Amino acid sequence: MSNLPDTPLLDTVPTPVELRKLAPDQLRQLADELRAEMISAVSVTGGHLGAGLGVVELTVALHYVFDTPRDRLIWDVGHQAYPHKILTGRRDRIRTLRQGGGLSGFTKRSESEYDPFGAAHSSTSISAALGFAIANKLAGQPGKAIAVIGDGAMSAGMAYEAMNNAKPAGNRLVVILNDNDMSIAPPVGGLSAYLARLISSQEYIGLRNLAKRVTRRLPRPFQNAAARAEEYARGMATGGTLFEELGFYYVGPIDGHNLEHLIPVLENVRDSDEGPVLVHVVTQKGKGYGPAEASADKYHGVQKFDVVSGKQATAPAGPPSYTGVFAKALTAEAERDPTICAITAAMPSGTGLDKFEARFPDRTFDVGIAEQHAVTFAAGLAAQGMRPFCAIYSTFLQRAYDQVVHDVAIQNLPVRFAIDRAGLVGADGATHAGSFDIAYLATLPNMVVMAAADEVELVHMVHTCALYDDGPIALRYPRGNGVGLDLPAVPERLEIGRGRVVRQGKTVAIMSLGTRLHEALIAADRLEAQGLSTSVIDLRFAKPLDEELIRKTLAAHEVAVTIEEGAVGGLGAHVLTLASDLGLIDAGLKLRTLRLPDTFQDHDKPELQYAEAGLDADALVDTVLKALRKNSVGVVEGARA
Amino acid sequence: MSNLPDTPLLDTVPTPVELRKLAPDQLRQLADELRAEMISAVSVTGGHLGAGLGVVELTVALHYVFDTPRDRLIWDVGHQAYPHKILTGRRDRIRTLRQGGGLSGFTKRSESEYDPFGAAHSSTSISAALGFAIANKLAGQPGKAIAVIGDGAMSAGMAYEAMNNAKPAGNRLVVILNDNDMSIAPPVGGLSAYLARLISSQEYIGLRNLAKRVTRRLPRPFQNAAARAEEYARGMATGGTLFEELGFYYVGPIDGHNLEHLIPVLENVRDSDEGPVLVHVVTQKGKGYGPAEASADKYHGVQKFDVVSGKQATAPAGPPSYTGVFAKALTAEAERDPTICAITAAMPSGTGLDKFEARFPDRTFDVGIAEQHAVTFAAGLAAQGMRPFCAIYSTFLQRAYDQVVHDVAIQNLPVRFAIDRAGLVGADGATHAGSFDIAYLATLPNMVVMAAADEVELVHMVHTCALYDDGPIALRYPRGNGVGLDLPAVPERLEIGRGRVVRQGKTVAIMSLGTRLHEALIAADRLEAQGLSTSVIDLRFAKPLDEELIRKTLAAHEVAVTIEEGAVGGLGAHVLTLASDLGLIDAGLKLRTLRLPDTFQDHDKPELQYAEAGLDADALVDTVLKALRKNSVGVVEGARA
Repeated sequence: MSNLPDTPLLDTVPTPVELRKLAPDQLRQLADELRAEMISAVSVTGGHLGAGLGVVELTVALHYVFDTPRDRLIWDVGHQAYPHKILTGRRDRIRTLRQGGGLSGFTKRSESEYDPFGAAHSSTSISAALGFAIANKLAGQPGKAIAVIGDGAMSAGMAYEAMNNAKPAGNRLVVILNDNDMSIAPPVGGLSAYLARLISSQEYIGLRNLAKRVTRRLPRPFQNAAARAEEYARGMATGGTLFEELGFYYVGPIDGHNLEHLIPVLENVRDSDEGPVLVHVVTQKGKGYGPAEASADKYHGVQKFDVVSGKQATAPAGPPSYTGVFAKALTAEAERDPTICAITAAMPSGTGLDKFEARFPDRTFDVGIAEQHAVTFAAGLAAQGMRPFCAIYSTFLQRAYDQVVHDVAIQNLPVRFAIDRAGLVGADGATHAGSFDIAYLATLPNMVVMAAADEVELVHMVHTCALYDDGPIALRYPRGNGVGLDLPAVPERLEIGRGRVVRQGKTVAIMSLGTRLHEALIAADRLEAQGLSTSVIDLRFAKPLDEELIRKTLAAHEVAVTIEEGAVGGLGAHVLTLASDLGLIDAGLKLRTLRLPDTFQDHDKPELQYAEAGLDADALVDTVLKALRKNSVGVVEGARA
Repeated sequence: MSNLPDTPLLDTVPTPVELRKLAPDQLRQLADELRAEMISAVSVTGGHLGAGLGVVELTVALHYVFDTPRDRLIWDVGHQAYPHKILTGRRDRIRTLRQGGGLSGFTKRSESEYDPFGAAHSSTSISAALGFAIANKLAGQPGKAIAVIGDGAMSAGMAYEAMNNAKPAGNRLVVILNDNDMSIAPPVGGLSAYLARLISSQEYIGLRNLAKRVTRRLPRPFQNAAARAEEYARGMATGGTLFEELGFYYVGPIDGHNLEHLIPVLENVRDSDEGPVLVHVVTQKGKGYGPAEASADKYHGVQKFDVVSGKQATAPAGPPSYTGVFAKALTAEAERDPTICAITAAMPSGTGLDKFEARFPDRTFDVGIAEQHAVTFAAGLAAQGMRPFCAIYSTFLQRAYDQVVHDVAIQNLPVRFAIDRAGLVGADGATHAGSFDIAYLATLPNMVVMAAADEVELVHMVHTCALYDDGPIALRYPRGNGVGLDLPAVPERLEIGRGRVVRQGKTVAIMSLGTRLHEALIAADRLEAQGLSTSVIDLRFAKPLDEELIRKTLAAHEVAVTIEEGAVGGLGAHVLTLASDLGLIDAGLKLRTLRLPDTFQDHDKPELQYAEAGLDADALVDTVLKALRKNSVGVVEGARA
């Protein structure tokens, strides 16, 4: 792993300041070294590889042409920004990518002044860039904003909303459409087909054609190759009408790996008085690394790998993932029920729906990065008699919150939400954590919210969702592998709003929602070892709560603790509210709620994140013991102090 | 008010079944009578008038041509659906519009089989229609889905997401673009300019041109006027490339008040094998009613009015509205601080920003119906040193939840959220209630959440927001008028996370957030009259909570009740969580939380809604007395039972 690439030129370029001192004919070598360095780094860290490989030349060209960090360069999503990180003062930490305490796998404001706007969710860059551009305009100060956004990200409504509002930014805004014809999965929809037509209907802008499309004299090395231009105006575009109709000047398509094209085009865009400009750049995901180019997913996200062979480290063998169990269970339900269908927003493999699609292609809908549409589309399907499962990560379902409220919950339509990546997610960090769904869903009337404690429960819950036609129902489960239980041959239909007693004790009760159940059982063992007879309850439902079970549990035990993989306002808050409503707290109640801390936790290994969060067996034992030691007059010695 | 219009033909048409038996040459009269009936009804109920007037002919034509309710007709937003309601079996209740127990001001599934999908928030119709269309396709059953969507609604990202996914629906999907060049306010952005160009660049499709664009023989009355057509295909469109690029067949523009054009075009669209089709219909908001046509806002939303003069009933004189106080206070802050700017999503008058804009046009941004963009744009502005106020209704901020989390809270950017219409909103009903923002915001790290108890507090809080640069801060306030206090000459900067004691008592404590404070004071008077010395606390902040004040309050009183204009999971849940964290519940605590009920409440007068919700002085007194009567062993006699 220690075979570092030879990078004599890159070694002299720690930041864009040094980059901009290079001669144009040195940039090719720099790009090659940058690519090699990035491959080497990701080979030891794992992470997003294909996207970064595709923008090596674009990264060099943008920092070369624009005056970063004064000019604000905003990478949409940010997982393609590893070359950018290497070039902006972070090369010394590039081999800590996505490791605890190391660099983030996305752009992040706290990391560098060269990251003016953090990202991780898709399609935010144009809106943010507009904010920077307009702020500069209002302040009368120089500085442009450049958004680099992929064609996949363009399927999201907010990118369109931003384009629709771009005009007032004038030439302070530049949008680079990085068109590699795939986001994580191949793109879908009308826009994608349109971009393909744009590209196929014309040749790349060569130096000859460039000459007709630029006003300024081209910079030195290109002066001979390209003649002076006459105008830089509407007429320059031979395609791109969609973007022009929204108010942009369209330039392209341009070969995004050809620095001799990129540099002069970007220089002229930079110096143009017209704007905003959209530059359509065509790149190849995985470019320049054979194994990635040859791979179907272009090494979108990889484990550690061997640079020479491209062979990735195999993940340690373990039980099937929750995602995989979900897909299998849903497929089984769909065999039985022809009205079951499934919707994903550009995450067919992440949600396991690729496996469902293999069996039921007609009943699988990948709508692109379009969670809002996904949910309301599902509501329409449900209103016409289908049984749709919307499989969306917890963090991305935030994109469709209003649709969940307005189109599903208010109308009480039976849309099934399969919420993957619930709770902490590890290397993707705070932006991808599924922390809030219990709180933002359980506050809604008509909504049923449940969480699987293990893979067997997940199978039962998928079955329960499939059979539940009375209104919306949400099922959350985490990233990662199950605990290794045998899957049931025949799934059970669970009673809505009923928990289960996993272990019956007498003194302490742990009421768990989700996969913390495992830690609850460990904690129970330890408490038993200290002579504290401990019940472990799997509440299963955050809404509706099992009032009878909770009432009995609180009455029968000396201390009770809830634990959930979610933020404040979720299960614990609802249990406390119930206890208050019922008057159970009047006479004294040692009830504590363990939940995620009131901070955004950085990326790390999930088990370390949960330890940091205070959501493990240690924290449970500690909380119980503190509560029991507490005297009875309310002196502060709180569970979470 | 009882001068009902003469409607001999309409009287014979209670539903579309009878409508479809009419001869085409009777439709003009029917439309005229329908318009008169609608004007008459809204003159006694108040409500949305201009939008409905603009679609009278379109309503008649759609029900005449399509086989509703089998064909699913989905009105975007739904406030233009009053003529539709009159024609679909609800004429007998049309004078109950927006009244308690009466018809909803929007489409609603529970009202009629002719309302296949309820609405109220904008831009959902194409996604929903796609759901219906695809469900029919999967089931192999007949039935089309027709979405009628305004040009303003097209500025929202989810409409674009839906269009991008429309292709697979084929001819089962029809989108009617109802282009009246304004939503509530004049439209903004590139799309709007584009539509204007489309219309101005060509004439309406006349019968002569129609002939070239339709395949089928035209129906009887139009046979002579229009010749047979040869093809109905791509070539038919002379403009509309944006929609074509997304996969639609574009037909238009068509005069939306000319039934002789509408009927044959819609018939041919209905019978076409190609699709999906977008029909661009140009209408005039307020059409056919002089006072509305002459008004700047086209009588978008009106009070009761006199039909002959058009003169609206003046709202009863009262204190300034919270919206007005906010606008004035923000303008004052902006006089002092050039970095303050304001963003609205198509609600300049609803949020009061029209007044701000009159003073600071350069610092006001109306982004159209584009809440997602609004929030991330604000985040970009904040990251570049501006102090943006995002003024968005509570219910519409749901549209931007992910942006609040991902772009604002995680990055801890100081975006100010001015959340109007917090709590129940009266005649607009459940879809517009601002019920969930406390829960969905207070669960987020870094977020400050406060609520104004009256208009003086609102002024202080606007000032506090303006000066707060440490992260995101949200300020919620209700629809309607203040309580009549004199506004402060000099606003105070409030300490973050500090409540105030409004009245000091000894036995009972009411801890209020927001404008229920007034009811809390009434309740306190009543409790005092029963010998119960009562404290009234205005907590001001749902996050961070005033731990010291809450601790002292709970310790010093025999019973405490929280009250808030929000759903479960909000203030009360957070106070209970704090009390649990601190161990304050261990020794017994009579603490109750009053919040909105776990149902979606129908439209009614706000004070009746709050009474129904159990959020008034009666409910407070009742809750306190019940809690005090309660014995100490936890027998059920809950506050909300």
